[in-house]
Amino acid sequence: MTKLLIVSGYADEYQHLLEMEKLPELEVITAANPAEAEAVGLECEIVLGEPKLVQPILMKMKNLRWAQSMYAGVEQFLDPSLRRDYVLTNARGVFGDLMSEYVFGYLLNHERRIFERYRAQQEHRWDGSTTGVLRGKTIGLLGVGSIGAEIARTAKHFEMIVRGYTRSSEDCSDVDVYYHGNDLLEFADELDYLVSVLPNTSETRRIVDASLLDALPARAIFINVGRGGAVDESALIHALESKRIAGAILDVFDQEPLPKEHPFWTMPNLLMTFHTSAPSLPEDIVRIFRENYLRYLRGEELKYKVDFERGY
Amino acid sequence: MTKLLIVSGYADEYQHLLEMEKLPELEVITAANPAEAEAVGLECEIVLGEPKLVQPILMKMKNLRWAQSMYAGVEQFLDPSLRRDYVLTNARGVFGDLMSEYVFGYLLNHERRIFERYRAQQEHRWDGSTTGVLRGKTIGLLGVGSIGAEIARTAKHFEMIVRGYTRSSEDCSDVDVYYHGNDLLEFADELDYLVSVLPNTSETRRIVDASLLDALPARAIFINVGRGGAVDESALIHALESKRIAGAILDVFDQEPLPKEHPFWTMPNLLMTFHTSAPSLPEDIVRIFRENYLRYLRGEELKYKVDFERGY
Repeated sequence: MTKLLIVSGYADEYQHLLEMEKLPELEVITAANPAEAEAVGLECEIVLGEPKLVQPILMKMKNLRWAQSMYAGVEQFLDPSLRRDYVLTNARGVFGDLMSEYVFGYLLNHERRIFERYRAQQEHRWDGSTTGVLRGKTIGLLGVGSIGAEIARTAKHFEMIVRGYTRSSEDCSDVDVYYHGNDLLEFADELDYLVSVLPNTSETRRIVDASLLDALPARAIFINVGRGGAVDESALIHALESKRIAGAILDVFDQEPLPKEHPFWTMPNLLMTFHTSAPSLPEDIVRIFRENYLRYLRGEELKYKVDFERGY
Repeated sequence: MTKLLIVSGYADEYQHLLEMEKLPELEVITAANPAEAEAVGLECEIVLGEPKLVQPILMKMKNLRWAQSMYAGVEQFLDPSLRRDYVLTNARGVFGDLMSEYVFGYLLNHERRIFERYRAQQEHRWDGSTTGVLRGKTIGLLGVGSIGAEIARTAKHFEMIVRGYTRSSEDCSDVDVYYHGNDLLEFADELDYLVSVLPNTSETRRIVDASLLDALPARAIFINVGRGGAVDESALIHALESKRIAGAILDVFDQEPLPKEHPFWTMPNLLMTFHTSAPSLPEDIVRIFRENYLRYLRGEELKYKVDFERGY
């Protein structure tokens, strides 16, 4: 039998879904947190879990051969002091559409002035003024991997113009114009919306800085659904306070949970959510695990392998 | 020369856009309201305008041959006591994508709990709970004309299941299952979202009544972007008060503007807007007028002709 440890607040739901899959030669052990995992599962050769719950036991799993992250982000596994003698795979291809729902939910909230309309309702005021629309607007994507590609696809559905900034790739046909390297300020020029889906790596660190924010028009909205490390938060606060840009929608932050005294909480032109833009739905993650587990049994290369150096 | 009267609060913008088109043999006269129109434009053979502003002068335009409505809805022209000795065309094919933006903006607002997340922000509360998603939900469209088809297309983009209720047509390939006639309650069964895009005709009057609302599951959201006449407002109030359905989003009402004392204003699970789901963008309307005007000059049949009996 192959022993799998599941470490998650939803471990029972995962176990139930895995049992329905009837995967061959699989013994499932569940733990809701690292302490439980340490008590029951250190001898497992596979771990499937939330990165922050797996990290504390990573060095103690003597037989570990494969770790499947339930999330896309795997920073918790990347510190050079941690082991790298196993295969790390993350969840990919299942967050793009959910993140796209988030991005367009908030963009439509902005354009259609849903908060303003609600205030009019509260005041019993018939406000027949015209709202904005998405059609014809320009969106710029910082990063065009599988998630960025899905946002691009939705943007084209809404008849928007799509710019993509990538290191070098130009694979997504829904991007109208690509930018690379030193083109960053040109990329930002006249964007209606700037969306970062960048992971947290040495190359992306603070890429959204004062100069990039200054290059945006005053009507621009910045959305971050990638990682907080890609943003210079002080520069963003300054850009919002001085109305250099019209607003920000942030799902991720340098420090999470965001400290209680952080200025973001009270900025009038900033809406925040709580690292919830793309829920990891157990059905999605089990589908990924199933596919990779069958490859594992057959001795094939796993999908969605993380390069420890690149960080994704 | 052919004399065109424009009657609209945005008449100057329309005039400017029409001048840029350089349409042959066209003399444009503008009026911001019916009184101005009566003073300067009664002899015109074509009128392009907002229905409610054109109606008061309709019987006085001696040379009228063609009226192009700036809106989709043309109730103001349909009363049997009014003349029918001219061609009435409405605006079509330009509202579908904008109404689709509205519908999905509000559906995403609901699923992603954008108001709740904002309250958490105001309370400095990190709320990492999972939100809902559109993917996999079932949407039912009352009416699948050009607007319904566009909503269906967006629903399929978001991987939803689409039901359509029509008199008989089954033209839209984005609808998964069609319903007609007496199938209405079957159509409503287990819908997550019910969206009415129905016009106001004798056949659609009060089609959204107590029995239809009762057939919906308790989680259902009702959206009306068609006409208020299709809804029994008392039955809807009862369904919302008794939590028979989870909420309603209304852009149109039996009486507009909605009377100040109407219960809708203060219902906690109802969001309203003000007949603004699909703004008539002058660029769109001018494109329609241009196409029809060239047909008019050539003596060809106009597009988007309204049947006075059917009402659309």
